[in-house]
Amino acid sequence: MSAIDDLAGELARLPGIGKKTALRLTYHLLRQPKERGLRLARALEVLAERVHPCPVCHNPTESAECAICSDPRRDTSVICVVEQASDIGAIERSGEFRGVYHVLGGRLSPLDGVQPEDLTIGHLVRRATEPAGVVREVIVATNPSVEGEATAMYVQQKLASCGVRVTRIARGLPVGGDLEYADGVTIAQALNARRDMK
Amino acid sequence: MSAIDDLAGELARLPGIGKKTALRLTYHLLRQPKERGLRLARALEVLAERVHPCPVCHNPTESAECAICSDPRRDTSVICVVEQASDIGAIERSGEFRGVYHVLGGRLSPLDGVQPEDLTIGHLVRRATEPAGVVREVIVATNPSVEGEATAMYVQQKLASCGVRVTRIARGLPVGGDLEYADGVTIAQALNARRDMK
Repeated sequence: MSAIDDLAGELARLPGIGKKTALRLTYHLLRQPKERGLRLARALEVLAERVHPCPVCHNPTESAECAICSDPRRDTSVICVVEQASDIGAIERSGEFRGVYHVLGGRLSPLDGVQPEDLTIGHLVRRATEPAGVVREVIVATNPSVEGEATAMYVQQKLASCGVRVTRIARGLPVGGDLEYADGVTIAQALNARRDMK
Repeated sequence: MSAIDDLAGELARLPGIGKKTALRLTYHLLRQPKERGLRLARALEVLAERVHPCPVCHNPTESAECAICSDPRRDTSVICVVEQASDIGAIERSGEFRGVYHVLGGRLSPLDGVQPEDLTIGHLVRRATEPAGVVREVIVATNPSVEGEATAMYVQQKLASCGVRVTRIARGLPVGGDLEYADGVTIAQALNARRDMK
């Protein structure tokens, strides 16, 4: 096994990178100054060695707590529940949310063997209820897919008896979307969730 | 700069990997056992530290000479000239060539500032002529692009006075290709290079 095949093999294990692309990237790196490849190697090592889930919300961080949980300006009475840490970036970019997050680490999927105990749902329930009265609202922002909806329902049931308001992000037509090309389920949900215009 | 942004930034410098893909790959690695990322880091280090161009043909290798140059069964009287080391794999897969290679390290491109002295053409001329009589043929297998053709012509001119036969790989319709969808230039070259059927 040569160093070239070895690196191409490791790259090809990344999602969306096939064997040909992996080989092309490897030859690309061979044409670059070797510092380029070493900087990438160092960044991978730092990620593997220093980054760990935030003990409060499971967002990956290098610090004791993540940047959002340790920000005193964030409203800790509202928790936004997401499937993956990468979803936090998408919500932060909207600039619409000043609360804190909770990363489930996936969504319920019996077919893939993902059970409730594989997610951080138990931890979320403790966060939302202890001490009582601190958390006012849990916004469930799992994906609008079959599994994301099932996960949202499960979270809602777990929190139903806790006296915490549980909300779900709205579904409807995406801004800039085209009615002509929207699928029927999206249009049905956009109709059901219609609001009075004032 | 966080470890996540740092790795995503390094990944985004690879060709064909944008910022979104880089971030997706980074979060993918965060969900994997950390050995995965470390193995990729190690493979990158080995590539950067141990792989160097073969002193004979400029094909990257970890040994003193590359696997092809050090294979006694290869015919060293025929040199196939390619732009990039990655082209060697394509030719080897054809199973049609038993000679040796010479990697130019690119193609002439005045617009990109690639001059003859940036390529290994001088070394190729020495290989083809010293000692005299060893090399019988140089097959120029640069790409059938404008720059590849210009590079092939330059190589041919440099070797013209050396008494070595210089040939160019044939252009024509690709096997399995469809005449209906072939471009005019390819069809013109396929017509010009027509051969008698026996």
